[in-house]
Amino acid sequence: MARVINFNAGPSALPLAALERAQRELLDFANSGMSVMEHSHRGREYEAVHDEALSLLRELLQVPATHDILFVQGGATQQFAQVPMNFLGPGGRADHVVTGVWGEKALSEAQVVGKLQGGTARALVDAAPYHTLPETLPQDPGATYVHLTSNETIHGIQFAVQPGSDFPKAAAPLVVDMSSDLLWRPMDVSRFAFIYAGAQKNLGPSGIVVLIAHKDFLATGRKDIPKIFQYRTVAEARSLYNTPPTFAIYLVRNVLAVLKEQGGLAARERENRAKAAAVYDVIDQSQGFYRCPVDPKFRSVMNLVFRLPSEALEDQFVAEAKKAGMVGLKGHRSVGGIRVSLYNAVTLASAQTLASFMRAFIK
Amino acid sequence: MARVINFNAGPSALPLAALERAQRELLDFANSGMSVMEHSHRGREYEAVHDEALSLLRELLQVPATHDILFVQGGATQQFAQVPMNFLGPGGRADHVVTGVWGEKALSEAQVVGKLQGGTARALVDAAPYHTLPETLPQDPGATYVHLTSNETIHGIQFAVQPGSDFPKAAAPLVVDMSSDLLWRPMDVSRFAFIYAGAQKNLGPSGIVVLIAHKDFLATGRKDIPKIFQYRTVAEARSLYNTPPTFAIYLVRNVLAVLKEQGGLAARERENRAKAAAVYDVIDQSQGFYRCPVDPKFRSVMNLVFRLPSEALEDQFVAEAKKAGMVGLKGHRSVGGIRVSLYNAVTLASAQTLASFMRAFIK
Repeated sequence: MARVINFNAGPSALPLAALERAQRELLDFANSGMSVMEHSHRGREYEAVHDEALSLLRELLQVPATHDILFVQGGATQQFAQVPMNFLGPGGRADHVVTGVWGEKALSEAQVVGKLQGGTARALVDAAPYHTLPETLPQDPGATYVHLTSNETIHGIQFAVQPGSDFPKAAAPLVVDMSSDLLWRPMDVSRFAFIYAGAQKNLGPSGIVVLIAHKDFLATGRKDIPKIFQYRTVAEARSLYNTPPTFAIYLVRNVLAVLKEQGGLAARERENRAKAAAVYDVIDQSQGFYRCPVDPKFRSVMNLVFRLPSEALEDQFVAEAKKAGMVGLKGHRSVGGIRVSLYNAVTLASAQTLASFMRAFIK
Repeated sequence: MARVINFNAGPSALPLAALERAQRELLDFANSGMSVMEHSHRGREYEAVHDEALSLLRELLQVPATHDILFVQGGATQQFAQVPMNFLGPGGRADHVVTGVWGEKALSEAQVVGKLQGGTARALVDAAPYHTLPETLPQDPGATYVHLTSNETIHGIQFAVQPGSDFPKAAAPLVVDMSSDLLWRPMDVSRFAFIYAGAQKNLGPSGIVVLIAHKDFLATGRKDIPKIFQYRTVAEARSLYNTPPTFAIYLVRNVLAVLKEQGGLAARERENRAKAAAVYDVIDQSQGFYRCPVDPKFRSVMNLVFRLPSEALEDQFVAEAKKAGMVGLKGHRSVGGIRVSLYNAVTLASAQTLASFMRAFIK
């Protein structure tokens, strides 16, 4: 059937051109008579893709030479454990800014690791029930790092989302889960000690995670944990220590190439802001029919959550939207309601189609 | 260009029909108007694929109800650490049968974990320089588990490869790295406490690992390690605890469906033995031109290694084979020589083409 409009929260829509390229090359990549996924990860053909993905990321995000870019597996969920395994040693302290379900999970795993390794992990801030975010953080010295989740997909709240606003200052190196945040706009990477992001939002398919980390911070990592979990192992091997998920990285390359062709991240930011505005405007003009529970200052431009007057109407909304060719609108099962994810691959036209549908649905 | 004959050691050749299906469905999976990789892992369409992959594995390998099948990420290399993290507690002992480079790596990571968790890991057998394998193992009581690598891809040696032969008996639950061994033939899964296998040999693309484990053994796993690393977490969530690499699992499903259509594992074993015999016969009849360093009893049917009279001739062999449409023949950089990987997706005709080429090359 014809392609639908896909508002999934992740795995989510991918740029059509990136998928078409993969389809074209699936049986014969780079005129090699093989699929890219049948190539050795030590071969010239695959390595060119690997290096291009890394250099496109560096170019698009203007990652400074102080920072390494790594590819790892296991999802951001594995990073909840792997980050403290690397950095939370005896006497260390991880201060977590908990602003949603993902932040809760990150803290929980850090506490398990802390117990094993002799460090502690605690909530520096607990922002439950997650309708707003702190503008400043307690400046409590002595932390090894401060961890935050820059966009909470389930609750639809996002740090530093207002034009010109910045992330709050921290008393220690900032470690940030940017899974649903990275690559929707330009940003100052040098501000962060360690960024991790599961690809299945703005970057590619599931099964691959991007890390961007300050080399000095990486160098502080523990050396007594298994080699496969040490970030230095991955960094030294250019993310080829063991067999990487080659096809997933190939798709990330395809997505990044499309982003560049579309004018890079400044163009993305303009379009992403216009997409979010199209939907939030309907909410704000609906005289309470649609209600967004989020503090307007921190309304996410990636994941827009709202409620209707009843759950029955929400079900009807999802069902009628589906008939109109729009899927992925059901809110996360833990909070209910509606969620609209507007990652890079969702076009402005798609957001406008949804906005029109929302206006019509009121009547 | 036309598809080449691909003897890569992994990532490696995939069945053409599995790739063609992926190509056909890449933009519109299951008449949903989306690629499978754009679907939510919590949605009906993806879950059907996930469940089909699991049930095809269970059917093809006749996995008994005593055993769980899991999908995890990070490659077999991550399992080198994750297995002892789960099972090697204070006072525990992991006895490793070291029969090659991969076995060395598994022992090395287990020793690191042992140090962290208060257990020990040691070489029960060290078979260096890895040209033969032990037929029996020292029956040393007190081990928590015995670990072995059933096929060493670099050295071309394989346990239980002779028809009717069996794996050696162990004094403790057997944990086996079957990355380049699983699925080339039927086998008695009940014999093993824990099997792990990176997919990029007989199963699918890189980025996905299959685990087959006895439920009782899984239940002995530690509960004080991060949740994401506990196998029970994965088992309880049907391998959907966090976002799995959906497209990789979809491809595994495609490969398994092809295997079933081709007559299952008994048919695979017949063809795989014929393929290996075609190449070994040339070696044995070459009057020493080709020399296989492996004890004939343990010559691998998956990875066939041999030398030529000089490195210059080996280079020439690889170059001329490439001109004849055959790639992936260079031995691992750590041992040199030639390596021919004959995983399921390599046809008998391809092995015969190589055998003819080898005969002609002598002259």
